[in-house]
Amino acid sequence: MNEIIKLLQSHRSVRKFTDQGIEQSVLEELVKCGQSAATSSFIQACTVIQVDDPSAREQLVTLAGNQPYIATAARFIVFCADMKRHQLACDMHQADMLSGYTEQFITATIDCALFAQNVLTAGESLGIEGVYIGGIRNQIQAVTDLLGLPDLVYPVFGMCLGYPAQNPEVKPRLPLSVVLKKDSYSDEQDEAIIREYDELVREYYRTRTGGNKDTAWSEQISDMLMKEARPHMLEYLKSRGYLIR
Amino acid sequence: MNEIIKLLQSHRSVRKFTDQGIEQSVLEELVKCGQSAATSSFIQACTVIQVDDPSAREQLVTLAGNQPYIATAARFIVFCADMKRHQLACDMHQADMLSGYTEQFITATIDCALFAQNVLTAGESLGIEGVYIGGIRNQIQAVTDLLGLPDLVYPVFGMCLGYPAQNPEVKPRLPLSVVLKKDSYSDEQDEAIIREYDELVREYYRTRTGGNKDTAWSEQISDMLMKEARPHMLEYLKSRGYLIR
Repeated sequence: MNEIIKLLQSHRSVRKFTDQGIEQSVLEELVKCGQSAATSSFIQACTVIQVDDPSAREQLVTLAGNQPYIATAARFIVFCADMKRHQLACDMHQADMLSGYTEQFITATIDCALFAQNVLTAGESLGIEGVYIGGIRNQIQAVTDLLGLPDLVYPVFGMCLGYPAQNPEVKPRLPLSVVLKKDSYSDEQDEAIIREYDELVREYYRTRTGGNKDTAWSEQISDMLMKEARPHMLEYLKSRGYLIR
Repeated sequence: MNEIIKLLQSHRSVRKFTDQGIEQSVLEELVKCGQSAATSSFIQACTVIQVDDPSAREQLVTLAGNQPYIATAARFIVFCADMKRHQLACDMHQADMLSGYTEQFITATIDCALFAQNVLTAGESLGIEGVYIGGIRNQIQAVTDLLGLPDLVYPVFGMCLGYPAQNPEVKPRLPLSVVLKKDSYSDEQDEAIIREYDELVREYYRTRTGGNKDTAWSEQISDMLMKEARPHMLEYLKSRGYLIR
């Protein structure tokens, strides 16, 4: 196992940061790593907004469901799926852009995810850690307004980055046998394996919370999935020009 | 710039491979790196199908729009967004799962992308390179059938992996100033910058193809976006239990 594989396998989300800043040149190097990720048909559909303004950060803390580390992290950046740039490219060539396809939503969103994962990996290689903030989709229209995002641009997720002031354990993942399948999908063994894994997750939470939390993976998932999941997203995305057809 | 940042910034897609295989233990190590990526609310929604069967590989070559490297790569794996596992978790706790939310489609798809990017980065750290295959969405229902994917599972993209038998140049990305914005979205300068970048891309293609291809970025994008983009995707995804609300 080389250093990079060790680094990837030791990822954990970090939400407490020291006061140490991240210089602009370093942030830009990380973003360049993001740009270097594969991009579907060369669309390069990810735009990053670095949020420096302290008042905007404070508003985002609230909009994301009270996540204070959005304000305290050295950096907070928002990854946006951006087809405005493609509209511009079409305008430059007097081409009528056929937008609104679900497929375009998928490729633009995936572009952002590949990009962001490179940013985080590059950061981690420098001792910078962080956490993805999907919570910006809680009140996504307000976030859109705050960042002045035009049509065809939607904020996929945010990311806090900084030097860690905590040392969380790596969270145990599902056994490989559930996640990796050969030639065709089969899940006959999955329930038994998940029951065993549930105990591992319980133990992880028990140790990590001094006994305050004691939840199996399947329980956590089922509790979550009994509730609505950001039911405003479809209408929001349609209003941005996505998922129309 | 450390080794990891150098590695990330030197990514290119590789489509020609030597005969050297990738051992199962190595593949599994890469998949473990994928699992270690961040996962939204711990959903772990990515399932990987390793396609070993040569006849299935040949069929995928055709289904993906004639991409022969799907058959010739040492490995071909398919990343699937999988909420079947969550249905199982709900069943284990007699919970009624509220599925079909666009938000769930987003988180499951992003989970796969973060996962896959870690797999590729880990591979590249070992000299294994490859290419994402979005083309499996060309005839996604046939791919779904071939891999025996149940409801709530959809194949997001494939990935060819192997040891490179070609040495493509790194493709120049958009200038950072277009992609990274401060505090709010502004694109006043973008057209001028893209016009300069267009020349860089032309030059890249000219050099790489011995003068046979000479296309600007904005031209390539506008040509693509005048056409339909896999218009079957929305109906397909609805039929899998996604994007219903």
